[in-house]
Amino acid sequence: MLVDRIWTKARLLPCTGADAIDDALVASLDGRIFYAGAIADAPAGLDALDVHDCDGRWVTPGLIDCHTHLVHGGDRAHEFELRLAGASYEEIARAGGGIVSTVAATRAATEAELVAQALPRLDTLLAEGVTTIEIKSGYGLDLANECKQLRAARELGVQRAVNIVPTLLGAHALPPEARSADAYIDLVCEAIIPLVAAAGLATAVDAFCEGIGFTPKQVARVFTAAGLHGLRVKLHADQLSNLEGAALAAHFGALSADHLEHTSAEGVSAMAKAGTVAVLLPGAYYFMRETKLPPIDALRAAGVPLAIATDCNPGTAPLTSLLATMNMAATLFRLTVDECLMGVTANAARALGRDDIGSVAPGQQCDLAIWDIERPAELVYRLGFNPLHARIVKGVPA
Amino acid sequence: MLVDRIWTKARLLPCTGADAIDDALVASLDGRIFYAGAIADAPAGLDALDVHDCDGRWVTPGLIDCHTHLVHGGDRAHEFELRLAGASYEEIARAGGGIVSTVAATRAATEAELVAQALPRLDTLLAEGVTTIEIKSGYGLDLANECKQLRAARELGVQRAVNIVPTLLGAHALPPEARSADAYIDLVCEAIIPLVAAAGLATAVDAFCEGIGFTPKQVARVFTAAGLHGLRVKLHADQLSNLEGAALAAHFGALSADHLEHTSAEGVSAMAKAGTVAVLLPGAYYFMRETKLPPIDALRAAGVPLAIATDCNPGTAPLTSLLATMNMAATLFRLTVDECLMGVTANAARALGRDDIGSVAPGQQCDLAIWDIERPAELVYRLGFNPLHARIVKGVPA
Ligand SMILES: [Zn+2]
Ligand SMILES: [Zn+2]
Repeated sequence: MLVDRIWTKARLLPCTGADAIDDALVASLDGRIFYAGAIADAPAGLDALDVHDCDGRWVTPGLIDCHTHLVHGGDRAHEFELRLAGASYEEIARAGGGIVSTVAATRAATEAELVAQALPRLDTLLAEGVTTIEIKSGYGLDLANECKQLRAARELGVQRAVNIVPTLLGAHALPPEARSADAYIDLVCEAIIPLVAAAGLATAVDAFCEGIGFTPKQVARVFTAAGLHGLRVKLHADQLSNLEGAALAAHFGALSADHLEHTSAEGVSAMAKAGTVAVLLPGAYYFMRETKLPPIDALRAAGVPLAIATDCNPGTAPLTSLLATMNMAATLFRLTVDECLMGVTANAARALGRDDIGSVAPGQQCDLAIWDIERPAELVYRLGFNPLHARIVKGVPA
Repeated sequence: MLVDRIWTKARLLPCTGADAIDDALVASLDGRIFYAGAIADAPAGLDALDVHDCDGRWVTPGLIDCHTHLVHGGDRAHEFELRLAGASYEEIARAGGGIVSTVAATRAATEAELVAQALPRLDTLLAEGVTTIEIKSGYGLDLANECKQLRAARELGVQRAVNIVPTLLGAHALPPEARSADAYIDLVCEAIIPLVAAAGLATAVDAFCEGIGFTPKQVARVFTAAGLHGLRVKLHADQLSNLEGAALAAHFGALSADHLEHTSAEGVSAMAKAGTVAVLLPGAYYFMRETKLPPIDALRAAGVPLAIATDCNPGTAPLTSLLATMNMAATLFRLTVDECLMGVTANAARALGRDDIGSVAPGQQCDLAIWDIERPAELVYRLGFNPLHARIVKGVPA
């Protein structure tokens, strides 16, 4: 049997729930995994023109960053500086800070400019073994600009070897020109969602359910519209207060509920019943100097799958390292090494509604990361160190 | 006037206390800075064969990591994993964890092996613009092995373009074979310090003053011996409890007192009087989930210079990013952007007793970092992003 490529003499962490395998081999054919397992158990006669000796290196699934706001105009470094210098909220607003500044910069940028600004951030993530990244809109806040953001996200997947999963986050904030929150939700439900769905610009719809965002009732309208147009949903839930966002998300069969610092026991059990993934964002927790931890033990006890993501965004998480995020999940949230690894592979795939990525098993898309490490715990233990040896996307070294 | 090299059309952050300069030029001659300032004010006829157009990029002093344990054998990733999985102190000790495991691995390694293991960590720091790094011994804990660690540190400066500042940390922990702490301090004072000083293997002596380290009385003996042999001193002070380590360090005219989470008002004012630099280590604070902040406001009010360092070590700070450390200093310790920048340049130089590095001014060693940023705050604001464009050591692009 001749396949396209073989990686042999690897140590394999399949992230399927099965144990790690020494002396492993992975074979790819047509961008998918043809075989992954012990060399000794490989089909007789398996061969390829392109055989890579991994020399005992560890092979994992390519990493998945399942919650980002990677595409946006400008940055908020000056606001960060002002805040550290003791500037008040009003002074920062007068200096052009806050989310409105990101909305203005995103609206002012062309699609090509948004792509150019996002590429260095994307490249930083890819350099650490990321092969799939979710990217939300949410700084356009009108039909044209939300679509522009989503097209820029899609274009990143053309310019780089990476799977882009675009999410419409129209209900992120109130645009300055809106007459009212309800009027803006009308626009989201009646114009933006239908058009984005028809154009295939997003595979899911997200919203920000919070006192400073949108009410559960408004979010329910958004989710209903998403469902009508065949889009899955996910939610920024219970980050700053408990509006029972997790339960709301679960009620709509959400792929994930994200943040969850203030989620109640009821929210946890609703997520467990609905199979909704908990996406933990320790970078936002760190940057905001939050002290309220998500209910990790309750989520674990209920069997809710735990994913981890950067939340990369200019305001509350200017963070472009998924390895650093894993370290934060361990250090700040006390996730185990296994939970961290599953959180950026199999469980992150599930948070995106994808069953074809996130593990190294026959039939899966052949997205791999190959590491210069002695044990997988090293991916979590260090901060600021990148042991990536190679990144493979759809069977091709990237 | 013909110099060796000119960097022109730069934005210059000199870290001298003076303001940033637009349209700046830096000229190097024989490894030192010949001119640094506005292009318009440069000496007439200044020229070089090698002229770099910085195209508006920012130029800062090369960064200085003034507190590391970079040279050591092995890592503690497995211990990190066990602890997250809930293992007890005894289970970790049985599994070979703790500082004794690093001592054993460091003793077992040859000098060349220590160099080989440290190089990837060093390269990671250098890739972010570091041009000077302090490296402590302290995992050898006998004459031969402390010297081996210090020789390995020196060798790193041969293999890479970087200034190495070696520090003897003999009084770091009690070696397993010691009859008593006092007997080990005898060895440090009567054998290790004299020989290290005579061999020129270190420029300063450090100690760990703590309940689990050495008593103030033992530290005073070490500092006295250091002084007798012409070595400056510095101290791991008041990290886990207040033993008035800061005041002790100040009493001996220490270059720096480091950590300082539990330092008292008396300690702060003693440091101010003695001109002792406060080296803050937010990475250790982060990894240990510490909640007690160093007395930053008091240090500021007293005019104690603030430096920042990684504390890179395998147990409590497996951290190899000085940029991430600056972000932690801002995020966790609320240092301003200016304080963060001075903390890894001018004040870090002062913590090492060096007046020839840490700023961009005539006569200084020409160590520069050139950055693809719009404003210096970006070096602090982001986490996991590296905007370094070029690194210059002693006037030579590295
Ligand atoms: Zn978000
Ligand atoms: Zn230290």
